[in-house]
Amino acid sequence: MKILSLNLLLLFLSSYAFSNDGYKLWLQYHTIENPSDWQKESFEHFKINGSSSTLDIIGDEIQKASLGFFQKVANQDTNNPKLIISKFSDLDQQKFPLDANKITSLGSEGFFIQDFDAGNQNKATIMVANTDIGLLYGTYHLLQKIQKNEAIPAEGIFQSPKTQHRLLNHWDNLDRTVERGYSGFSIWNWHRLPRHIDQQYIDYARANASIGINGTVLTNVNANSLVLTPEYLEKVKALADTFRPYGIKVYLTARFSSPIEIGGKVTADPLDQEVQDWWKEKAKEVYKYIPDFGGFVVKADSEGQPGPHNYGRTQTDGANMLADAVAPFGGIVMWRAFVYSEKTPDDRHKQAFNEFKPLDGKFRKNVIVQVKNGAIDFQPREPFHPLFGAMPKTPLMMEFQITQEYLGHDTHLAFLAPMYEEVLKEDTYVSGKGSEVAKTIDGSLHSHTLTAMAGVANIGTDRNWTGHHFHQANWFAYGRLAWDPYEKAENIAEDWIRLTFSNDDDFVNPIKEMMLNSREMVVNYMTPLGLHHIMARSHHYGPGPWVTGGSRADWTSTYYHQASEEGIGFDRTATGSNALGQYAMELQKKWGDINSIPEEHLLWFHHVSWDHQLKNGDNLWNNLAKHYQKGVEEARKNVKTWESMNGKIDDERHQHVLSFMKIQAEEAAWWRDACLLYFGQFSKMPLPEGVEPPKHDLEHYINYNPKNVPGI
Amino acid sequence: MKILSLNLLLLFLSSYAFSNDGYKLWLQYHTIENPSDWQKESFEHFKINGSSSTLDIIGDEIQKASLGFFQKVANQDTNNPKLIISKFSDLDQQKFPLDANKITSLGSEGFFIQDFDAGNQNKATIMVANTDIGLLYGTYHLLQKIQKNEAIPAEGIFQSPKTQHRLLNHWDNLDRTVERGYSGFSIWNWHRLPRHIDQQYIDYARANASIGINGTVLTNVNANSLVLTPEYLEKVKALADTFRPYGIKVYLTARFSSPIEIGGKVTADPLDQEVQDWWKEKAKEVYKYIPDFGGFVVKADSEGQPGPHNYGRTQTDGANMLADAVAPFGGIVMWRAFVYSEKTPDDRHKQAFNEFKPLDGKFRKNVIVQVKNGAIDFQPREPFHPLFGAMPKTPLMMEFQITQEYLGHDTHLAFLAPMYEEVLKEDTYVSGKGSEVAKTIDGSLHSHTLTAMAGVANIGTDRNWTGHHFHQANWFAYGRLAWDPYEKAENIAEDWIRLTFSNDDDFVNPIKEMMLNSREMVVNYMTPLGLHHIMARSHHYGPGPWVTGGSRADWTSTYYHQASEEGIGFDRTATGSNALGQYAMELQKKWGDINSIPEEHLLWFHHVSWDHQLKNGDNLWNNLAKHYQKGVEEARKNVKTWESMNGKIDDERHQHVLSFMKIQAEEAAWWRDACLLYFGQFSKMPLPEGVEPPKHDLEHYINYNPKNVPGI
Repeated sequence: MKILSLNLLLLFLSSYAFSNDGYKLWLQYHTIENPSDWQKESFEHFKINGSSSTLDIIGDEIQKASLGFFQKVANQDTNNPKLIISKFSDLDQQKFPLDANKITSLGSEGFFIQDFDAGNQNKATIMVANTDIGLLYGTYHLLQKIQKNEAIPAEGIFQSPKTQHRLLNHWDNLDRTVERGYSGFSIWNWHRLPRHIDQQYIDYARANASIGINGTVLTNVNANSLVLTPEYLEKVKALADTFRPYGIKVYLTARFSSPIEIGGKVTADPLDQEVQDWWKEKAKEVYKYIPDFGGFVVKADSEGQPGPHNYGRTQTDGANMLADAVAPFGGIVMWRAFVYSEKTPDDRHKQAFNEFKPLDGKFRKNVIVQVKNGAIDFQPREPFHPLFGAMPKTPLMMEFQITQEYLGHDTHLAFLAPMYEEVLKEDTYVSGKGSEVAKTIDGSLHSHTLTAMAGVANIGTDRNWTGHHFHQANWFAYGRLAWDPYEKAENIAEDWIRLTFSNDDDFVNPIKEMMLNSREMVVNYMTPLGLHHIMARSHHYGPGPWVTGGSRADWTSTYYHQASEEGIGFDRTATGSNALGQYAMELQKKWGDINSIPEEHLLWFHHVSWDHQLKNGDNLWNNLAKHYQKGVEEARKNVKTWESMNGKIDDERHQHVLSFMKIQAEEAAWWRDACLLYFGQFSKMPLPEGVEPPKHDLEHYINYNPKNVPGI
Repeated sequence: MKILSLNLLLLFLSSYAFSNDGYKLWLQYHTIENPSDWQKESFEHFKINGSSSTLDIIGDEIQKASLGFFQKVANQDTNNPKLIISKFSDLDQQKFPLDANKITSLGSEGFFIQDFDAGNQNKATIMVANTDIGLLYGTYHLLQKIQKNEAIPAEGIFQSPKTQHRLLNHWDNLDRTVERGYSGFSIWNWHRLPRHIDQQYIDYARANASIGINGTVLTNVNANSLVLTPEYLEKVKALADTFRPYGIKVYLTARFSSPIEIGGKVTADPLDQEVQDWWKEKAKEVYKYIPDFGGFVVKADSEGQPGPHNYGRTQTDGANMLADAVAPFGGIVMWRAFVYSEKTPDDRHKQAFNEFKPLDGKFRKNVIVQVKNGAIDFQPREPFHPLFGAMPKTPLMMEFQITQEYLGHDTHLAFLAPMYEEVLKEDTYVSGKGSEVAKTIDGSLHSHTLTAMAGVANIGTDRNWTGHHFHQANWFAYGRLAWDPYEKAENIAEDWIRLTFSNDDDFVNPIKEMMLNSREMVVNYMTPLGLHHIMARSHHYGPGPWVTGGSRADWTSTYYHQASEEGIGFDRTATGSNALGQYAMELQKKWGDINSIPEEHLLWFHHVSWDHQLKNGDNLWNNLAKHYQKGVEEARKNVKTWESMNGKIDDERHQHVLSFMKIQAEEAAWWRDACLLYFGQFSKMPLPEGVEPPKHDLEHYINYNPKNVPGI
């Protein structure tokens, strides 16, 4: 038998590492050095009870992991297994007497993993669940633990998701453009569907399952009725069939005017019997193609989308009509609260609350209202949306944006878990202290069982899926927080790094720190101290504090920053729009006072004079300028940190990230210079010491007009 | 030292093979079983003389190949090298006395490889060239020989390209859509350029260099002036810098109206001094960014593009103005002959000839006229373009289409080398017998030194570059034929299969046969017997023999097939448009006679009655129907053949190709049914025995309207 040295093998591996394009995401399954006996034995003697396409996937996954971790083939061993993967109903409960009640409480997606010693022949790691999908989640969890070199704790691992529907929302159009997509084009090749099932669809499902995502909305909320025609439903069915063994359901966006556009009706009035019947028939048709179709997401009466307002009807009229259509088949309707109009003479911040709060209790049971994390639109920082907790009789779900529409598009490293975590942890006080947003999301605050979270996907045709390699971490983090809204950003970051890049602590620790600080860095160089919505018009790429005029005031920067010689900021207290009045009294009190409001929200709620002193004793202008400067310096420091990691990971990803980080550092300075030049016109104060003078004059920045910016 | 068995290593490799997405193209470098001593020694003791970025690439390439072929690290050995790679000027000519004249005759891109024995210590394989790029080409040639398990012949390998400029034409728009692109979107991410150089740009250059392509036109012939602005020239420069070490020059398409659109001029009249000066300044600016910029490609006065006709000027006026602008810097202008107008009351076939032939001798020396292989537009089969050989005083270049606008888009396997070969081998008779088209292309027919070939690229963001894995073969074949227009399609197919998939003859032979037959199969089920341009309107996806009316007759099917109860076909003989008069007398005679014209061109030149007897004694209608049926049967047979290859290559590519082949078989039947139903209305004859009746009625096919077809 020919022999080869391990060194040569590793060298060979390194040639692959050399050309790692990132496609494998956090499922790298890179070599585990010095594996424990337990690790090896688990793979050499594993057993899966039962058979199904999901269980086949589990077997394949163990095989892939074994080859990656140990360069060994995993073996099924039915006689003396060391790792047993089994539904509870298929388990030999004589050998392994588990607590049936405890297992039942895992529900349909949870899993239990424990080392079990039932005498000499029956010593094994056991993974149990009530369903195949629970086992699939358990498998990914176990493989990740092994990759991280973690042991199974003595008490075992007992996990089930805290929310019911954990969804990606794809803002993908049928022509494969992606609204606010910065990583290429849509991975859904509608033209080739249903006849060609691309490997990437399978890899997509696998990646999502590995982080607990169980639903995907395939189409843009700015919807196209065409997807509801038979020609496209055939295609949707093909994707649903592909995703099913991974526990992922398919959902679609329903364009409210579909009865007119593809149904030949003269109206889409939700109280019109013919319209209601049309939707019922349409739902029936959809379920014929896809028996486990998840349901509809609807953006209505917002940003040009049709909706019940067109017929003088309410959001409940619209939502309930669709809910009634899908209810017989177990479907749900996710009705977006992102409703506002330039014709409503009120602060945009207040409009969703004003519209939805009075409707509390009027929605059907299978409707969940989908609320963005903040009241404006996915800004680098927003106070939590006042609707959270404010509709106790209605299930509310969270909509986070994973794609970085407002956080630097493709090239800016901004790890979003701290932002998600910040909102989830906020106390709404609506049922007294301890009414955190997360408790609305998991349903515990008002005892709802219909629970969900949505993340607007950042996935595209780029070879690494997400453009920036680090934006994979935001997809990963979103999945983890949808599974458990109480998870810590820090743990998520560390897990992601270890799974994606390396277990080397000299890499993990500095990179984790960099990631955890990155969102605050972006806030610093874009919108510090509560500033918001001051980016360029339409494509939202780069700074645009000067954006004013045009068709709608609520799409301009000057509307939001209100900068003048008197000061800056949007007065949302009782002296202003009183959006603050939509929050609990505790917050009205704390945030209403310019001296007690957390400075990170200052200009969101207050119009503040330039010379107002902040907590550090320095005035507003100087603080603002120093935040911008700090953001730039942090972005530059990241470049240095990353450069010092050269050689610790593969060259290809190292180079890719490095060039993006250099772009980020440049663009941080662009933001700083443009914003400080613009606001400086009003403050009329000099830049404080330590803040670099801008490279160009204001005109230069105003006139810069980049072409063909992606995502619109 | 830990040891691992070879079996385990191969197993590990197979896990990669299992998930081969095709990104590595024909550069798989898969394991060579039982390598010879010579093979191993060459890699264990190689030496590269000199240093440059191109020579570094050669070293990397040898390293990659060694790891792939033998799972071994290659070693530089300066003392006792077994493989010496050296420019002639850097070679120790005392040890290795080569014939200097012979080496000089290699030119700037050729290479010479020979096993050389100059005494015991000086036994080595030597690769010599006059330039680094010559060595790079030699390296790829050598590595391919090794992969194919071929030895170096005793007389050595002496190669240089037969054409000077071997170009890909990308019809890529700046928004990343690709005109007639069926494999995703443009790989040029203009937004990220110039600050991010994607690994794919490097891999693109590498792939092209490996088949001898030395130029790339980055932008669509339907051009956008924006690419000539400084903002975009910075981006173009970044690509040019990336491609340079691979011997690839960058070219752009010049929109004729640019002086107006980006230059602030009121005219683009080529005889206007200000316009001429503007282009001269623009060329100077371009060359400041890219000192070795290749030149411009221009589509003028065609399909809505601006051109000299707008100002009452000739094609020479336009071409020469641009030629004068780039001449000081060594640039060339490729002026497309694809000029026709719906306002010209003549057969579209004749218009380019009529326009260009009188201009022979009037172009500047650095202009080459770019002529499509046929006079209409890249049909599955066209007679060669009558301009070839007809402009003896003007260099003419070939434009082939690699992307399959008219041959089934992404999913139809059609190996195009036989089509390219067919045209290149055609005898034009313009300088007597033996005046093959290839002799125009290599310049030998009329002693031109400016020679070129262009291929309209089929490359996109699809993970395997080209959509269909087998469409990689068309990129490969184009490169090989541009290097040597006399190459045989059969050799190209075999090389591609061995490099891309496997050296197993049980795979190679049937797949080669399938490839070589595939284009004729497509002709059979789309446009047999000289039919042409009968596809669907605009997107050109699927059959559309009924297409008629609309803005231009020359964009309809009825214009081209002229079907009526009397017969079918376009009379281009003297009794018709007399396009045939543009060919040499020998061809006029042979093709003008309905009985001596090759049947493959019959309906291209003749209007033929349905009951006309063909050579096989059967009438036209029956022959037509049987051709369609044959194409369908062949497509179905390919599915079976490919299915039988299961297990001989990796599953991922096998599955991918299989699903495309099934689509092709379905669509072949679609073509047959639609065309025979349509033409049957006129022939009024029944389908002959053996031809399947259509699935649906004609209305069904006419009404089918697929949405969001890619490529427009």
